[in-house]
Amino acid sequence: MRYLRGEPHQLQGCGLALADYKPQHFLFSVDQGVATITLNRPERKNPLTFESYAELRDVFRWLAYADEVKAIVVTGAGENFCSGGDVHEIIGPLTKLDMPGLLAFTRMTGDLVKAMRACPQPIVAAIDGICAGAGAIIALSSDIRYGTARSKTAFLFTRVGLAGCDMGACALLPRVIGQGRASELLYTGRSLGGDEAERWGFYNRLCEPGSVLADAQAFAASLAAGPTFAHGMTKKMLQQEWNMGVDEAIEAEAQAQAICMATNDFHRAYHAFVAKEKPQFEGD
Amino acid sequence: MRYLRGEPHQLQGCGLALADYKPQHFLFSVDQGVATITLNRPERKNPLTFESYAELRDVFRWLAYADEVKAIVVTGAGENFCSGGDVHEIIGPLTKLDMPGLLAFTRMTGDLVKAMRACPQPIVAAIDGICAGAGAIIALSSDIRYGTARSKTAFLFTRVGLAGCDMGACALLPRVIGQGRASELLYTGRSLGGDEAERWGFYNRLCEPGSVLADAQAFAASLAAGPTFAHGMTKKMLQQEWNMGVDEAIEAEAQAQAICMATNDFHRAYHAFVAKEKPQFEGD
Amino acid sequence: MRYLRGEPHQLQGCGLALADYKPQHFLFSVDQGVATITLNRPERKNPLTFESYAELRDVFRWLAYADEVKAIVVTGAGENFCSGGDVHEIIGPLTKLDMPGLLAFTRMTGDLVKAMRACPQPIVAAIDGICAGAGAIIALSSDIRYGTARSKTAFLFTRVGLAGCDMGACALLPRVIGQGRASELLYTGRSLGGDEAERWGFYNRLCEPGSVLADAQAFAASLAAGPTFAHGMTKKMLQQEWNMGVDEAIEAEAQAQAICMATNDFHRAYHAFVAKEKPQFEGD
Repeated sequence: MRYLRGEPHQLQGCGLALADYKPQHFLFSVDQGVATITLNRPERKNPLTFESYAELRDVFRWLAYADEVKAIVVTGAGENFCSGGDVHEIIGPLTKLDMPGLLAFTRMTGDLVKAMRACPQPIVAAIDGICAGAGAIIALSSDIRYGTARSKTAFLFTRVGLAGCDMGACALLPRVIGQGRASELLYTGRSLGGDEAERWGFYNRLCEPGSVLADAQAFAASLAAGPTFAHGMTKKMLQQEWNMGVDEAIEAEAQAQAICMATNDFHRAYHAFVAKEKPQFEGD
Repeated sequence: MRYLRGEPHQLQGCGLALADYKPQHFLFSVDQGVATITLNRPERKNPLTFESYAELRDVFRWLAYADEVKAIVVTGAGENFCSGGDVHEIIGPLTKLDMPGLLAFTRMTGDLVKAMRACPQPIVAAIDGICAGAGAIIALSSDIRYGTARSKTAFLFTRVGLAGCDMGACALLPRVIGQGRASELLYTGRSLGGDEAERWGFYNRLCEPGSVLADAQAFAASLAAGPTFAHGMTKKMLQQEWNMGVDEAIEAEAQAQAICMATNDFHRAYHAFVAKEKPQFEGD
Repeated sequence: MRYLRGEPHQLQGCGLALADYKPQHFLFSVDQGVATITLNRPERKNPLTFESYAELRDVFRWLAYADEVKAIVVTGAGENFCSGGDVHEIIGPLTKLDMPGLLAFTRMTGDLVKAMRACPQPIVAAIDGICAGAGAIIALSSDIRYGTARSKTAFLFTRVGLAGCDMGACALLPRVIGQGRASELLYTGRSLGGDEAERWGFYNRLCEPGSVLADAQAFAASLAAGPTFAHGMTKKMLQQEWNMGVDEAIEAEAQAQAICMATNDFHRAYHAFVAKEKPQFEGD
């Protein structure tokens, strides 16, 4: 990232400036370091298509190099989060694919999750209404979830004859809500209501429908205030230590935290404390 | 499994037809694809013996090839689930065994858990009254747990001078209820009441004593309605991804779900959706 | 350990008798097999320094060989648990260290956690007031946590410009409270109140401020009553199976439990049961 400094709007890989990015399949805006991605086909409850999956994957890969973006909010337009893969635009065509074609599809959707977990910015999902199928996975793959009481989250792959093991769900969901509860949701595809989602630790906070997006953006802004290099390391290590032994994880953290102790933000925090001021983090 | 088609009652390995199976140490019945295993020594709260452990291990291994069985319920007769290894019939004899004999026993009991986790059918435990020791492990090794408020689940190995690490408990229990709560139960052997079990995610649902078995069977029947091939894949991947890294789990699911997309049940679901009908899954 | 029998107060490694141990940086007492470690700079809310970190690491390594100590309680003096690394005595000096020096520090703090997880005695934390930074990690690294409603636990590394990955937090905390809740605490450093800590499974029990230490000591005494060899095996296997597959964990437990079945405590429990007496465990 550092060699990009001085040309902050020149994004690696695609040579595209952040201000010039106009996505085809969702809304995208950046305000005070917080990028908001809004799935935007509200008349259909924001379904995904082959093209929107791919563009989502690409934008998260691209955001990994977007230094001006410090945190990310994902949401849906029109009082719903996302209805998942569209039956007509995805399920139908999938029934006509051969095995290499099927695997290319499941790898593409999995790559979206990999990209969400690999970008250094914390991702906050703002969830209202329907949050189903791949939409539930996008919520699950976020770092933090704010949702409404009336929202309904459903890992409903089983309803279309498929398994619960989609885009990493059998790995991720048990670690969030426990193995027994995850098993039930993945076998049945039933809707998880907002109150239950909060009680189970799927939601970090219950919000009012009118404010859930603003609440998520405010929370994301608080993370965007830094220390962003350290937040990126927290996210990386949550991923990295997923299947390490405890002692190996401790050594990994000794190294990771020593790196963070060599940053200027650590020094800024110390000097602010001594001066009885609030630290201003700069991400280096 | 497929090469068994056309001879559905011929069970692999033992050459025994399902309808002819008469277990020695528990009750066994099959209704509409749901097999119910009932521990049945109610006057002793359904303890286990060397022989019943072995037969339970064998029946779960055998059920892996029983295509007509789509889901499994485990329960106990007479208002108790299971009191665990019988003190007179198991603990006493164990005190007289040499090390190879002890290890043969602990491996046999562990093989029961391995067989429960390896059979493709989801297992639903219906728990009332006492659920102790190896009984608690049988509940833990099930996929879904329905229990009553008055039930008492106790991992009480410590009470007989043993460790909490029995039949996989130190691996399984922390993933269901969290590491801190699991540590307490395994160090102390204390009883977990039904309300607390639901609150902690050990129980998926609290039921009335008079209906817990019927509720579990109804839930199992809903899973038995399919898609059963996909359910078997969900179960396999929950096991398979236990200690994978996140990215490896996502690739594993890409492959597993691509396999499910090649099934007829996936096509049936799509065509039913287009026809605005409820899909009829057939397990292939 | 067994070759130390007959010279119970001769501690391995340092040749120091338990009764003669006078720590420099905390209080230490042993009563009926329960060692209590009390962080004791109440006027500063019991912060840690380079020296107290090192002595804590050493005492836990040393306790691994202290046969007379059967369980351990960790607490803080003066209505606070621990305020973490002192800003003036630790953070300031760290800003002046080179990379080898930083890594030496993060490895030392990590070694404290490794030592807490490696000693065979269960560790019970008694938490009131402030439990912050490295203090929160000491609580997290304990086996059991008793806390008060007014206590405030904060993994506040982010507040000093650092990452949440400190001393194993990204590995340990998600397994205790779930990945989503752990992510929030580690990204934000916010305080977790006592009620929420109990609801999330971070605390095993909520206690009154006036009794939390006595409650923790009473609980530790109940564990100290044995079977202590088995408790040590439970603790070892909770650690050992952290990132094993399920089948491998079951085999590991078959071996570990077979070892426990060869102990005298197992025989004592059986004979006490037959005689309708309460077993007296002796730890061998």
